[in-house]
Amino acid sequence: MKAGETIIWDQEAAPRGFQTATGMASVKPSNTTRHDVALIYSPDSCTSAAVYTTNQVWAAPIDVCRDTLADHQARALVVNSGNANASTGQQGEIDAYAMRSAAAEALGIDPAEVLVASTGVIGLPMPMERLTPVIASLGSKPGPYRPRDIACAIKTTDKFEKYHGLRLPREDGEVVISAVAKGAGMICPNMATMLCFVQTDARLTPAAAQKALTMATEASFNRTLVDGDTSTNDMVSLMANGASRTEVIDTHSDFFDYFASALTELLLHLAKEMVRDGEGSTKVVHIVVKGAASDSDARLAARAIADSNLCKTAFFGCDPNWGRIAAAAGYSGAKVNRHDFDIFFDDAPMVRGGISLGDVAEEQCAKVLSLPEFRVTLDLKLGSGTHDYWCSDLGYEYVRINADYRT
Amino acid sequence: MKAGETIIWDQEAAPRGFQTATGMASVKPSNTTRHDVALIYSPDSCTSAAVYTTNQVWAAPIDVCRDTLADHQARALVVNSGNANASTGQQGEIDAYAMRSAAAEALGIDPAEVLVASTGVIGLPMPMERLTPVIASLGSKPGPYRPRDIACAIKTTDKFEKYHGLRLPREDGEVVISAVAKGAGMICPNMATMLCFVQTDARLTPAAAQKALTMATEASFNRTLVDGDTSTNDMVSLMANGASRTEVIDTHSDFFDYFASALTELLLHLAKEMVRDGEGSTKVVHIVVKGAASDSDARLAARAIADSNLCKTAFFGCDPNWGRIAAAAGYSGAKVNRHDFDIFFDDAPMVRGGISLGDVAEEQCAKVLSLPEFRVTLDLKLGSGTHDYWCSDLGYEYVRINADYRT
Repeated sequence: MKAGETIIWDQEAAPRGFQTATGMASVKPSNTTRHDVALIYSPDSCTSAAVYTTNQVWAAPIDVCRDTLADHQARALVVNSGNANASTGQQGEIDAYAMRSAAAEALGIDPAEVLVASTGVIGLPMPMERLTPVIASLGSKPGPYRPRDIACAIKTTDKFEKYHGLRLPREDGEVVISAVAKGAGMICPNMATMLCFVQTDARLTPAAAQKALTMATEASFNRTLVDGDTSTNDMVSLMANGASRTEVIDTHSDFFDYFASALTELLLHLAKEMVRDGEGSTKVVHIVVKGAASDSDARLAARAIADSNLCKTAFFGCDPNWGRIAAAAGYSGAKVNRHDFDIFFDDAPMVRGGISLGDVAEEQCAKVLSLPEFRVTLDLKLGSGTHDYWCSDLGYEYVRINADYRT
Repeated sequence: MKAGETIIWDQEAAPRGFQTATGMASVKPSNTTRHDVALIYSPDSCTSAAVYTTNQVWAAPIDVCRDTLADHQARALVVNSGNANASTGQQGEIDAYAMRSAAAEALGIDPAEVLVASTGVIGLPMPMERLTPVIASLGSKPGPYRPRDIACAIKTTDKFEKYHGLRLPREDGEVVISAVAKGAGMICPNMATMLCFVQTDARLTPAAAQKALTMATEASFNRTLVDGDTSTNDMVSLMANGASRTEVIDTHSDFFDYFASALTELLLHLAKEMVRDGEGSTKVVHIVVKGAASDSDARLAARAIADSNLCKTAFFGCDPNWGRIAAAAGYSGAKVNRHDFDIFFDDAPMVRGGISLGDVAEEQCAKVLSLPEFRVTLDLKLGSGTHDYWCSDLGYEYVRINADYRT
């Protein structure tokens, strides 16, 4: 972010020209009180983009979105919680397309302008008989933009709603970005979904929309890790309706970096909220590897540490067990000189030149580990490669939540 | 194993010409009762071999063993528990070589014939002032071969001793193989070690010794997984003194396959014992992937399932949550057709053609998951590639053991 490029954090910020609606379809028959269907809509046409799960066992809605986004013109999104429409075979695809058609018909727009997302249990057929009429009713009268309502309707095991907005002042007006997300540990106990929907009134070219979203996702959701598992339904979408009437942003525009950086900060905030809400998580840990022989080496080492159950249980136990960090780097595939690396917890040094600094250092580091959020830095002292991850710890609650029989 | 090639399981089987001794050095000063140093010795010269951790942050004893085994002639091994001599810098190497010298001097043999191993906490200096005299006293009078004593002396967090022997009858006599191991989750809470020492009175060429050990390790310890972490000290060694006076086994001998298969079964038995003893483990789960596009694809998928916290907590909770298995395969990097795979728990089918077989199947599969040992089969239906892993589940005890501050 350059000097003078201000970001104003405003959780309820509403991008001009977006509407929302939520309703209750009892997608899970046991749900008798909570809204579980949501609609986001822009009467003006949008430039749109998305990134998806890389899991080869992807859910049916992913197919619909890939189809819809072929021309980068989606301006509506329909989503349900309670059923992920994953591993549902051919019928799942038919149902996902039917959700799209129901929303398009009620809104009076082209089905090819509607994104579809689902989150919840997998392997069960979608209750279309209950879902379709609710989608139709929402589409016939969307109301003011209420991100909190959307965040609430898409929750599954999330303990709290995840949404935030930003205002970006610029000379010719103000651009607003709002993002709504769900996810606790990337994956809910039923292997459902991390979802994030970004709405903005910026005017973006399709290339700028895709590039900014890909960059922001790479630096946020792709660097957070609760359990290393990758869901079948993950999706991050962006719809930009240009209602701010500010100058068009292309990938070469001066404003592009400002916009992309702001979007990155917004998504990183939500990604950290997911880690904080991670199943049984008690801490948010920032794993920073520097001094690696290359950035990709740093990534391997940071990922191995963030993914190590031994490191994560030590974080849970406030134990500065640096040997586990060194060992994870050692088996990560990154180049490591076992006789020369440094480890810090926040700014407190624990290891210099591959050797422990002793009991006093350990006591100081243990204090850092008792904080709800801290940084672990591993300096491999081999080059200038860096990478970082945000991860949760691993405690009893994770086991309890994930061992429970699906109900 | 061909017909007529018998394996007689005999836990206490003693290969001719091997001796052992154990003693107490209070490597950990808090240890006032348990033997923590062990010696294995053959007065006859041996053919020897080893495989090591691939961790780049390897412990000092690994260097000594690589050095010793350059000529495949180790005939003694000294090991301590309580301190892993890992991440101990230059002094750690000096200490590991000093352990080797102390044993060699007492036994009156060349230091280049002595292997060294350590297991326990890392990052602390070795208490050589207590260790050296005990090694000297053990070396001066080794006694009869007692694998149980060795297994007991090398335990750290192991709940039980791990050792077993085999007798292999052949026309010109009997070959005995005995293996002693330690390990609970590949890695103890202090990131120490999985160790396994194999002694046999077979006559092996160096090439046969190395090949049989590598094959057996690949099919046993390298296919077991408790937490996916790789220790700094892992080592499997083999010493063959030829005292059976049976025919020499080369890699081309008829007897080679018999010997290698038997060794594989022996090490697989110990590997499963480690999984069973895995930190907080309540189940031993055999993950079998077949029908993959290639063996390496099958390996990727099996490893991802065995490594998935979501799968492992479901195993703990007796939940046939097949979606997690499909998802793990889907992100493993293996080729997966999301519309066509089958999943079984033991012989009970849960999924056919990518779709759940419903509630009755789920009830039957949940019964399988309540067993202490069961098999999960994923058939990817794309080719003839297969691979398998043995893994533990993930329960509360794992967290408790690994979160505890090092004491």
